Amino acid sequence: MKNKFSILANEYRFMLLDNVLPFWLNHGFDREYGGMLTGLDRDGSLLETDKSIWFQGRALWVFSEAARLHGKQAEYQEVCSSLVSFIERFGFDPSDGRMYFRVSREGKPVVKRIRYVFSETFAIIGFASYSRAFGKKEYATKAYNLFHTVLDTLANDILVPKYERKSRGFGLPMILLNTAQELREACPEHAEELNRFIDGLLKEIETYFVRPELEIVVEQCAEDGALELEHFEGRLLNPGHAIEGAWFIMREARYRNNDATLMQLGTKMLDWMWKVGWDKEHGGIIYFRDALGKSATEYWHDMKFWWPQCEATIANLMAYSLTGDRHYLEQFSQADQYVKRHFIDGEFGEWYGYLHKDNSLSTPLKGNMYKGPFHIPRMYLVCNSLFSELAKVE
Amino acid sequence: MKNKFSILANEYRFMLLDNVLPFWLNHGFDREYGGMLTGLDRDGSLLETDKSIWFQGRALWVFSEAARLHGKQAEYQEVCSSLVSFIERFGFDPSDGRMYFRVSREGKPVVKRIRYVFSETFAIIGFASYSRAFGKKEYATKAYNLFHTVLDTLANDILVPKYERKSRGFGLPMILLNTAQELREACPEHAEELNRFIDGLLKEIETYFVRPELEIVVEQCAEDGALELEHFEGRLLNPGHAIEGAWFIMREARYRNNDATLMQLGTKMLDWMWKVGWDKEHGGIIYFRDALGKSATEYWHDMKFWWPQCEATIANLMAYSLTGDRHYLEQFSQADQYVKRHFIDGEFGEWYGYLHKDNSLSTPLKGNMYKGPFHIPRMYLVCNSLFSELAKVE
Repeated sequence: MKNKFSILANEYRFMLLDNVLPFWLNHGFDREYGGMLTGLDRDGSLLETDKSIWFQGRALWVFSEAARLHGKQAEYQEVCSSLVSFIERFGFDPSDGRMYFRVSREGKPVVKRIRYVFSETFAIIGFASYSRAFGKKEYATKAYNLFHTVLDTLANDILVPKYERKSRGFGLPMILLNTAQELREACPEHAEELNRFIDGLLKEIETYFVRPELEIVVEQCAEDGALELEHFEGRLLNPGHAIEGAWFIMREARYRNNDATLMQLGTKMLDWMWKVGWDKEHGGIIYFRDALGKSATEYWHDMKFWWPQCEATIANLMAYSLTGDRHYLEQFSQADQYVKRHFIDGEFGEWYGYLHKDNSLSTPLKGNMYKGPFHIPRMYLVCNSLFSELAKVE
Repeated sequence: MKNKFSILANEYRFMLLDNVLPFWLNHGFDREYGGMLTGLDRDGSLLETDKSIWFQGRALWVFSEAARLHGKQAEYQEVCSSLVSFIERFGFDPSDGRMYFRVSREGKPVVKRIRYVFSETFAIIGFASYSRAFGKKEYATKAYNLFHTVLDTLANDILVPKYERKSRGFGLPMILLNTAQELREACPEHAEELNRFIDGLLKEIETYFVRPELEIVVEQCAEDGALELEHFEGRLLNPGHAIEGAWFIMREARYRNNDATLMQLGTKMLDWMWKVGWDKEHGGIIYFRDALGKSATEYWHDMKFWWPQCEATIANLMAYSLTGDRHYLEQFSQADQYVKRHFIDGEFGEWYGYLHKDNSLSTPLKGNMYKGPFHIPRMYLVCNSLFSELAKVE
């Protein structure tokens, strides 16, 4: 008789391969112009013809990982090749090598965000994963080179607007951590360099954003590390974001032979931000909280978005797999049940993205410039792997 | 016995002078560093020490108009002088003469938005109104000069990001219309020039944004006027914004001896967008709609914000005063009753800013970088004047 982890592994594999990925292959994959459309309505019909450059890299990562981990190279070869080609042909501004944020369906530039490097970081993880899944080492090299372009861009300080108050944001080191982890898998020859880079990011996160004095992870602080509690942004807590960072750190603990210090850092971040973020009344991870419990200024603060639920699901299961502490398994179940009850669309597949605080639907669309094939399939991918491991142990 | 319009005139005057303005004078006016703080919690306590440059100009307009129209020069001299001084000392970047968006409490630059001229337009209306209220003609001249700086900035095309799809937005001509109208009151010697400028704006609004084929006012269209129905932004309807523009046009009709063509344009915009925007289930003007009724991507689309209610209240009362059509008076009453029931804070004064679709409170704060003393006191000011006129006629 199969144990419960093996049942869950199959369930998550089914949701990945037979529900979520087919939704995007059937409705988002643009066989005419190449790449992935993400502006899709509930039933998959097209709401927006522009393409997100973030999502070309993110979808490439997702389909490549699904191909690699589930032996689906033949099935996902076409979409992955198309994504790679779209990124290489239309993702970069030839004048400076920086990437666009949004292009038209056929690939004409529409928006470039010069102050952010996230189009680049998602292309890096896409190329890295594509290289591993399809044995194309040249894309590991391209990923590595693009990673260094990003580091150069960051070093040149052009990302800091002239007049902004100098602050540190959690998002950048958190995304760079994940980027370097993915790149390391594709470029083992650079593991030593990337480990040192990751050491720096971990130190930055722990020093500046993990704040024992309030038992919170902040999104922003002053350059010298001072809390900015007199400003809206300085008090802003984004529990889903912090919990995503927590499992990147737990993943690093696993990579480093279950390093106890990193395990403690990751689980502490999860513990604090689950407590802050889980809505005890209606369930689900709430979007924003205020560090001092003051009134929110972001008017969508009390909504439930899809991706914080994904990150909380992964983080709790990973914490259980690392520590064996059953309260993480219970929290995983809370998140898992909440998603099944409120987010999954039983009729057309995939998940809704945006619920009100009381879990009623705000908008039924399946994708836009910020929601597409990433957090949800990543959750099914990562949790399927964790369940498969747990099934062997139990 | 007083008639109902004179009762309403008194009620709106009371709300302006004894409720809303005292809230900002008592809690927002910064007697230490000068200017107006707007990041205030429900009870007026400070949530954010930075100052919005928009709101220095907007508050200056509001307090100057209240001083001028209600003989309160002595009461509001201090706050108006402080606002003028704060704008002149801290609002401008000396390197290029452009204005900041956000500064610290003591006036240090924090954010500058080089692609927008709204800090400038609100300073113009503030200076213009200050000039009229306190007999300081030099501020009419400063307003006029700043207006020409704005026109030069717009002509230089530096506001268009390199890669953005070339589109036209409703916001700019709409705000420029209001700016030119306010400036004309302070600079009658430039009326002819400003009338011609306003003619151009009216033509632009009617040609590009008022769309009889769908009976809507769009927020954005292609440079050549094509509807962009394949894009989220091209389908986005902002009923409160369109209705605000509608009463600026009705105001122009009044200025031009009840010009019938402009009256029809303004009331048509109101008719269409009231139909699109009024929530028949819960009341109130909803924030966003989709031109084709497709799923929204902006997740706050179904919320009720304070300012669309203000604009709908003014527009319906003005339409009634222009046309005598009683259905506008009925719509005014719907908006007025809705506000009284859901937005006004009976305990601490002023209004809430952000309600969910069902009118439950999203956040109780009274102000932030976008909510401060402007739409609400402007509504009480404009409606008080309209009621006073109507009371004389009835």
